[in-house]
Amino acid sequence: MTTSPRPEPPLTPALPPPPARSFASDNAAGASPEVIAAIAAANEGTALAYGDDDWTRRASQAFRDLFDAPVESLLCWSGTGANVAGLASVLQPWQAVVSTESAHLVVDECGALVRFAGVSVVPVPHEHGKLAPEAIDPYLQWLGSEHHPQPAAVSITQSTEMGTLYTADEIAAVCERAHANDLLVHVDGARIANAVAAAGSDVRTMIRDTGVDLMTFGMTKNGAVSGEAIVYLRPALAERAAFVRKQAGQLASKSRFLAAQALALLEDDLWVRNATHANAMAAELARSVAGIPGVEVVAPPEVNAVFVTVPAAAIEPLQDWSFFWDWDRPASVVRWMTSFATTAEDVERFAAGVRAIVADHHVTAG
Amino acid sequence: MTTSPRPEPPLTPALPPPPARSFASDNAAGASPEVIAAIAAANEGTALAYGDDDWTRRASQAFRDLFDAPVESLLCWSGTGANVAGLASVLQPWQAVVSTESAHLVVDECGALVRFAGVSVVPVPHEHGKLAPEAIDPYLQWLGSEHHPQPAAVSITQSTEMGTLYTADEIAAVCERAHANDLLVHVDGARIANAVAAAGSDVRTMIRDTGVDLMTFGMTKNGAVSGEAIVYLRPALAERAAFVRKQAGQLASKSRFLAAQALALLEDDLWVRNATHANAMAAELARSVAGIPGVEVVAPPEVNAVFVTVPAAAIEPLQDWSFFWDWDRPASVVRWMTSFATTAEDVERFAAGVRAIVADHHVTAG
Amino acid sequence: MTTSPRPEPPLTPALPPPPARSFASDNAAGASPEVIAAIAAANEGTALAYGDDDWTRRASQAFRDLFDAPVESLLCWSGTGANVAGLASVLQPWQAVVSTESAHLVVDECGALVRFAGVSVVPVPHEHGKLAPEAIDPYLQWLGSEHHPQPAAVSITQSTEMGTLYTADEIAAVCERAHANDLLVHVDGARIANAVAAAGSDVRTMIRDTGVDLMTFGMTKNGAVSGEAIVYLRPALAERAAFVRKQAGQLASKSRFLAAQALALLEDDLWVRNATHANAMAAELARSVAGIPGVEVVAPPEVNAVFVTVPAAAIEPLQDWSFFWDWDRPASVVRWMTSFATTAEDVERFAAGVRAIVADHHVTAG
Amino acid sequence: MTTSPRPEPPLTPALPPPPARSFASDNAAGASPEVIAAIAAANEGTALAYGDDDWTRRASQAFRDLFDAPVESLLCWSGTGANVAGLASVLQPWQAVVSTESAHLVVDECGALVRFAGVSVVPVPHEHGKLAPEAIDPYLQWLGSEHHPQPAAVSITQSTEMGTLYTADEIAAVCERAHANDLLVHVDGARIANAVAAAGSDVRTMIRDTGVDLMTFGMTKNGAVSGEAIVYLRPALAERAAFVRKQAGQLASKSRFLAAQALALLEDDLWVRNATHANAMAAELARSVAGIPGVEVVAPPEVNAVFVTVPAAAIEPLQDWSFFWDWDRPASVVRWMTSFATTAEDVERFAAGVRAIVADHHVTAG
Repeated sequence: MTTSPRPEPPLTPALPPPPARSFASDNAAGASPEVIAAIAAANEGTALAYGDDDWTRRASQAFRDLFDAPVESLLCWSGTGANVAGLASVLQPWQAVVSTESAHLVVDECGALVRFAGVSVVPVPHEHGKLAPEAIDPYLQWLGSEHHPQPAAVSITQSTEMGTLYTADEIAAVCERAHANDLLVHVDGARIANAVAAAGSDVRTMIRDTGVDLMTFGMTKNGAVSGEAIVYLRPALAERAAFVRKQAGQLASKSRFLAAQALALLEDDLWVRNATHANAMAAELARSVAGIPGVEVVAPPEVNAVFVTVPAAAIEPLQDWSFFWDWDRPASVVRWMTSFATTAEDVERFAAGVRAIVADHHVTAG
Repeated sequence: MTTSPRPEPPLTPALPPPPARSFASDNAAGASPEVIAAIAAANEGTALAYGDDDWTRRASQAFRDLFDAPVESLLCWSGTGANVAGLASVLQPWQAVVSTESAHLVVDECGALVRFAGVSVVPVPHEHGKLAPEAIDPYLQWLGSEHHPQPAAVSITQSTEMGTLYTADEIAAVCERAHANDLLVHVDGARIANAVAAAGSDVRTMIRDTGVDLMTFGMTKNGAVSGEAIVYLRPALAERAAFVRKQAGQLASKSRFLAAQALALLEDDLWVRNATHANAMAAELARSVAGIPGVEVVAPPEVNAVFVTVPAAAIEPLQDWSFFWDWDRPASVVRWMTSFATTAEDVERFAAGVRAIVADHHVTAG
Repeated sequence: MTTSPRPEPPLTPALPPPPARSFASDNAAGASPEVIAAIAAANEGTALAYGDDDWTRRASQAFRDLFDAPVESLLCWSGTGANVAGLASVLQPWQAVVSTESAHLVVDECGALVRFAGVSVVPVPHEHGKLAPEAIDPYLQWLGSEHHPQPAAVSITQSTEMGTLYTADEIAAVCERAHANDLLVHVDGARIANAVAAAGSDVRTMIRDTGVDLMTFGMTKNGAVSGEAIVYLRPALAERAAFVRKQAGQLASKSRFLAAQALALLEDDLWVRNATHANAMAAELARSVAGIPGVEVVAPPEVNAVFVTVPAAAIEPLQDWSFFWDWDRPASVVRWMTSFATTAEDVERFAAGVRAIVADHHVTAG
Repeated sequence: MTTSPRPEPPLTPALPPPPARSFASDNAAGASPEVIAAIAAANEGTALAYGDDDWTRRASQAFRDLFDAPVESLLCWSGTGANVAGLASVLQPWQAVVSTESAHLVVDECGALVRFAGVSVVPVPHEHGKLAPEAIDPYLQWLGSEHHPQPAAVSITQSTEMGTLYTADEIAAVCERAHANDLLVHVDGARIANAVAAAGSDVRTMIRDTGVDLMTFGMTKNGAVSGEAIVYLRPALAERAAFVRKQAGQLASKSRFLAAQALALLEDDLWVRNATHANAMAAELARSVAGIPGVEVVAPPEVNAVFVTVPAAAIEPLQDWSFFWDWDRPASVVRWMTSFATTAEDVERFAAGVRAIVADHHVTAG
């Protein structure tokens, strides 16, 4: 008979296959092959637990070499863990940390620092994710009075949650203002590699010489299976670090496997090469979608995040095809992130999909 | 010439080479080759972060299959992390957990639970590491009064920190007493594999059917690079678990690499085979040293720990040769632990070294 | 000789004597005579400790009568204590309370809530101290995701730290928005008496019928020696309150002395009469200084705080003469507060001093 | 007719009236008349809030005079508050305080210290409530290792929860052992007055010269309406005290009313006279009941607590007649406490009631 229902035509016919690697986040990637190889290699032989092993000692030395300074480094599992253990090791519960209202530690760590350390977090406005030195000023009048949380640290994120970059001068200015008022400066460096790569700089210039006191040195988003390091630029600050890391559940029993990853990334600057590639892929993605009608790149990517506006109606179809996160739904801004693992083919396919799906909804909307 | 300096005679001549793998702890071992392979295999392709991936979903299913029950499982980085996040997710800060005074959470986690969750820990005496049901009785009179911490959970360790084993009946008796008073039962199963292997049992009989409410399912000491799971036998208890795990710094961004390890261990019962081997090596070690004059095995090992008394003077020379931990220095009791990786040759060499060094000091002492 | 040095003229000649009672704060006052008498009267006889006494039971009933509802009330020592214990009794450590950035709990409690309860505080902008319902909207998208602190309560202050007043409709609108998203509404009522007096209303209309879930009912600033009450409008919310109050160090052993104060204040509406007087004195003060050249009343006082701008140079001389606090130093705004104890003569003298000192500095500046 | 049922004879005919003041606890008493008078007197005039007033300054001086040393003192509301704020101001969250398992801070403060400060509490066995110096030894091996909570203070209670008294030599011995291992010594002096009175000593000999580092100086149980002081014998330890007290909800806005009570108690040694009387009443009570068949005084009272065994069947009837607390129900031990307010007539009546009720149940039992 001829009464059989006619199949619905697909909403967007002839969609290209989604890219092999998601643009949802840089931790949607796996690990660098060198990192996997290093884990396998570290599996040889015996090693005392909890960091009393040669891999961990070599990683400590590698960080000292990297910063060309007697830094103390403690390996942790995760970025949240390293941020929490690092800040908790230098703050008291009646103190406060000043941070932008967009900071990972404010928004994306479920209040972990507050719960674990009891410290107050003072969120301040930002410009494109960056904290201006004078943002801490209103809270300096709290100093000395028992009624107010006592500002004792500033935490900035490099590169920022908004995909922007502090210059070394900007970091130095934050440090100067903070130190003049006896506040420490902490850098959440979950993406420090992308920052260093983008600036064509190094951590000596960007972190050590600007006066940063301690930082989270990120590895996971840059090619590790897991693992970050708390790096204390002022070693005396590390006095309580071992106890706090243990309490924070961040002390690895088989520490060699974290250390081996750190060594793999630091060797021959793999960490910078990985980040350079990720940044380049973001630039390429921005270029590739810039000409698509209905798509607007919010700002040229400084590191490995591309913020774009797309037609509201296209967001969900795009996400269904290859998932990513909204950034600002009312404004139709979405975030696409690249990683060390992103390939040119991934970019090409993704851009093709965006073109196809947006076209469909842009036309519909138009 | 005859003026060359005469070499010092070695303190203990003809010492055998130390074993390739230390008997210091089961986490001095590396990881099972299958685990390393699983990590490498999981590196293929893209996967959304924070557990929204197929590996993690399969691991959840694998735990449900293992327990043959609708358990909820959450992967964590470390044993301390899993104990803290698990207990914190079911306890309030005015409540207390009753545990033996030798429990890992009392002695070996730097007060992590107390700091993170604010709960009181009530240490009670034990027999060979085991908590008797009636040990909780003195604290039941605290229930209902605002002046006292409110006992709300019992935590037992299976197998125990003293290398002993609860029978299923003993666990059931703890559960019965606890549940009759509205306390939950938590099992710290850092060595649940060794317990299951030693009992010739399974987690359904030992954990599910005895009434345990939640547990830490240990993987690291049993062949993983890292990783443990909180397993909620009563799924409703997991309601807050995701938030607490995140706050505790135990949520892996690249969750697939923890999940892949869990899958590798659970597949074909590798986890039980690993533990069976470790237990067998401990038995072999006990046999091998039993006849050495001056050495006394405190009790036949039930799992993978051998507690022995050795002459006091021999302890440090032995540790210098192949490190292990004192257990009770005044009583000259030391602990030797085996793992999945321990080989018969390791045992042979270690026993030979013990024989040689103890002989030296035993004779001296005699 | 004519060379003797000419004496410096006094900076401000003929300064009037300062007022007998300071305008620094409403807790610079002592206590109502009725309160002192009630304490003395409560000293008769024996009373079991910790609230198991008739005074405390009568105070509980008095609060039920006041609200004409089955409210649960728990007496506490201090405003900070009552805010902390109240909010901690209904929040979990992964949750957040939304409050204005000028709120006492954000600014003036040294981070007590954060430390004690581990909850996050989300400060939002305000208009004249008041939180608009839509201020919570940006944080609602955090709900349900383990990455973010979970908004679970809104705390507003009535009357506000800026000396303003929510209308009942405004409170109801906050409650509606909050409840629609499963957030509780907490009122910091350190000055609830001033609010009720100013509105010519009562707590049934202002608090109970608007949907408030729990509040701090302030007594200290309104004539008590010490003491506030947590009032749970929804009695089921008080389930954990006794334990939390005890842990927060807010359970009085000799509870009768707090209860007697509450009874004295509630009897014959002394609490409202005290506040009515304080408010009237603030209005009188505003009138008295309004015409002084160089002095500008920022807004007609709604309750018992007068915010005025005075010439910058006059601030310290004024404070030296009769102390008060700066409010916004750069803008030369200061705060003067009245209390139940302020007399018309105090106002007169203070206004006279302000006139004299400002005149001196205003002329100098002019 | 003669068929009407004969009424049951009352179980205990001719019971004497219960005493006017309960023997349940020393905080079932009210306050000393001098304290009430001091509160009323402090109500005159204005005083800046939060301790910036003359009463508070005079109280600080009074404590310096009492100890004849430059002690720092901070007034708090409650014993739990003062213990928590005092210990929290000198401990870090990875540290531990060693205390007897019968200590108020272990048993009777609902885990407040643990929750607020995150520190571990290590309960150790005691002899009649007293901690022997060597009780801390097993935990000294924890020092220096990140795996273990770090013992950093010992807290002892003087007089103890068991109604016993440390000699000055015993306190000095605890201090010596503690200080030799870098632990501080804290004294919970909720009943320091009773201890000083019983020893015929003073706080210089008992506290200052024995080496105590900080203490809670109790006032509530000894005649205050409320209020205790943290006294830092080593002033440098008070560096963080103001912030911690504020966070702990223990800073009084109208501080003068706490200070006035302290001044009233310290003036002319009222605090010692009150305690001397309470102790004498306990001795008298012990004498009065010693000869009653079935009643056995466990030990001659050293301070103001009398522990006695009574027939099990008599306990509830006695409590119904005049309430007191069980101490050890299985052993039929109960606790009777006297206070500054107890009269000879109270003792006489109570003893008479005990005689009557016990006789009844002793005969029944016999």
